Amino acid sequence: MATILTLAGDGIGPEIMTQAIDVLNAVNDKFALNLTLESGLIGGVAIDATGVPLPDETLARARAADAVLLGAVGGPKWDGIERSKRPERGLLKIRGELGLFANLRVAKLYPQLANASSIKPEIISGLDLLIVRELTGGIYFGEPRGIRTLDNGGQQGYNTMVYSTSEIQRIGKVAFELAKTRAAATGSAAKVCSVDKANVLEVTELWKQTMIEMQQAEYGNVALSHMYADNACMQLIKDPKQFDVMVTGNMFGDILSDEAAMLTGSIGMLPSASLDASGKGMYEPCHGSAPDIAGQDKANPLATILSVAMMLRYTFKQETAAQAIEQAVSDVLDDGLRTLDILDPSEAGLTQVGCQQMGQAVLAKL
Amino acid sequence: MATILTLAGDGIGPEIMTQAIDVLNAVNDKFALNLTLESGLIGGVAIDATGVPLPDETLARARAADAVLLGAVGGPKWDGIERSKRPERGLLKIRGELGLFANLRVAKLYPQLANASSIKPEIISGLDLLIVRELTGGIYFGEPRGIRTLDNGGQQGYNTMVYSTSEIQRIGKVAFELAKTRAAATGSAAKVCSVDKANVLEVTELWKQTMIEMQQAEYGNVALSHMYADNACMQLIKDPKQFDVMVTGNMFGDILSDEAAMLTGSIGMLPSASLDASGKGMYEPCHGSAPDIAGQDKANPLATILSVAMMLRYTFKQETAAQAIEQAVSDVLDDGLRTLDILDPSEAGLTQVGCQQMGQAVLAKL
Ligand SMILES: CC(C)[C@H](C(=O)O)[C@@H](O)C(=O)O
Ligand SMILES: CC(C)[C@H](C(=O)O)[C@@H](O)C(=O)O
Repeated sequence: MATILTLAGDGIGPEIMTQAIDVLNAVNDKFALNLTLESGLIGGVAIDATGVPLPDETLARARAADAVLLGAVGGPKWDGIERSKRPERGLLKIRGELGLFANLRVAKLYPQLANASSIKPEIISGLDLLIVRELTGGIYFGEPRGIRTLDNGGQQGYNTMVYSTSEIQRIGKVAFELAKTRAAATGSAAKVCSVDKANVLEVTELWKQTMIEMQQAEYGNVALSHMYADNACMQLIKDPKQFDVMVTGNMFGDILSDEAAMLTGSIGMLPSASLDASGKGMYEPCHGSAPDIAGQDKANPLATILSVAMMLRYTFKQETAAQAIEQAVSDVLDDGLRTLDILDPSEAGLTQVGCQQMGQAVLAKL
Repeated sequence: MATILTLAGDGIGPEIMTQAIDVLNAVNDKFALNLTLESGLIGGVAIDATGVPLPDETLARARAADAVLLGAVGGPKWDGIERSKRPERGLLKIRGELGLFANLRVAKLYPQLANASSIKPEIISGLDLLIVRELTGGIYFGEPRGIRTLDNGGQQGYNTMVYSTSEIQRIGKVAFELAKTRAAATGSAAKVCSVDKANVLEVTELWKQTMIEMQQAEYGNVALSHMYADNACMQLIKDPKQFDVMVTGNMFGDILSDEAAMLTGSIGMLPSASLDASGKGMYEPCHGSAPDIAGQDKANPLATILSVAMMLRYTFKQETAAQAIEQAVSDVLDDGLRTLDILDPSEAGLTQVGCQQMGQAVLAKL
């Protein structure tokens, strides 16, 4: 028996989570997975209830659980709060406390949604790119940090971007191994592009050097390339299919993974996994809490539902169940069902649906 | 009489500079500008000649000059050099030493080149976006920085992202003022989008707060919005025309300005200005040194030629001469002349030309 902690969070979090839980319960029955679900508080709702964005109780239950399914956190309601207590801090804290250093974000083009992108179809058709983002280090967690008052009366803000060899090796290994797995599955050559700004930042010079040493010592069969972050941001637009696995630090990964997601035109479709060293993980959609449409039954639940599939694959090694969910999602798209974010008004034969209807349609396919 | 220091640099630098100098000499005569040109060494060629990427002599002449025109620096030849001596350090040092804190990069779509972009035409047609990047602070210059050996024998790299209120105000003022100028020219409302990651980084929280205070105190007629860097990177793809002026720090600016340039599909066309507090400036193309095509007469000289136009506008207040150059560039595009980087093979009536032919065609139009 295994336990999953669900944390719906804020904004559209509760709506999308309801649908994902229905799907999770359905596969749990169908494949006799013996999973138990619990729920807890994080983000703004946790602040409202307990005063902090990640209550100790939630953290304790997350530690005890085998996996966490997260909706989304944050919203204007909590923007004015003192910074150490904001919803985002709860998210950063749970990542750090659970040691979820490996964030996997897939930017995959669903052929049914090819027109939703701003990018010309020939540039992105068939896109299937994995970004491996380091998630518990770098400038997100580096000390010292803060805002201090200067002698002249002005203020100064400062943060520290820091990585050690062992942190870089740990995430490098995840990227190299996943590149091998992906290559084996498709019969293509394994390749990793490491993104840095080694021409300016010493910390990323160490990053680059460490990746080179790992490749030479252990991953001779994986082609390793390097790209500066500014160029990577350009190349993702110019020719995203040149990449297979990209690996980078926390901040560049934040930016590049969002960019890659947007290339597909369907960020409402993209799941993510954040894993610790043992394979335990937190799973969440790449999109945010979208407070502007919260509670209106307009949100797209598919990224959260696909996050359930990732959870079954990575934490519970239930590939068949994972694929069943992915197939069901593909089927509802084939049927022409679209939430607002992925609806192309110029395309014939589509049906606009709400969050609930979309979730229940996936359920019906299972 | 005023002096311009030209620094051709590495890779395609010398080829594009030759064409830009021809154009500069031509407008100098035509508009009786009384400009004197000197040349100096920077980057890899300076390393080869003197051992350092920014010789003291170059720096002294740059200080004495009224403006600097730069080609590009760097290339694989100097990648193995100890980091304090690499070509890029010369570029960073001249920016810092001359106090060129305001980097202006325009992402403008040339209608003649609309097809060169990866982005669908309707998303980018008419795009004309100004990115104001802080250029002498932030993590590029912050101390402490370096790579140290840890007790466990591993290494640790670290950099510091730091901004003070006065640095933020200085660049904020440039952005607000330019937004007003642009709005006055087009008859539209002035707006600035400030990009930060205030939900995670204290230093950018101070950035955001300072922008808010400035707007409230002095720029009530400029609409100020805020966006997180990851979202800005997405929004640039989804709907770049929502922006007019964006202002951000050194590192986010590096990434976002390259992204914005690539949206137009014609980074070979985009000039930039780096200004100090008095309007003195260094002007350079947004693209790099492109070592792969150096010396082959394939480079696009137009970004450097358009950098000359920016120089005439911002440092020498010669709007007529600046516009003459811009018109000449537009005319050669109308004539169908294209260097390889902006050639659309599917379009009829175009003539592929080399760097020299392109430069001379602009000259002939003047
Ligand atoms: C909400 C925010 C703190 C977070 C991050 O920057 O990591 C988000 O943008 C993400 O990518 O998951
Ligand atoms: C060459 C490099 C140091 C430079 C930078 O990062 O500033 C370049 O990318 C730029 O944007 O001018």
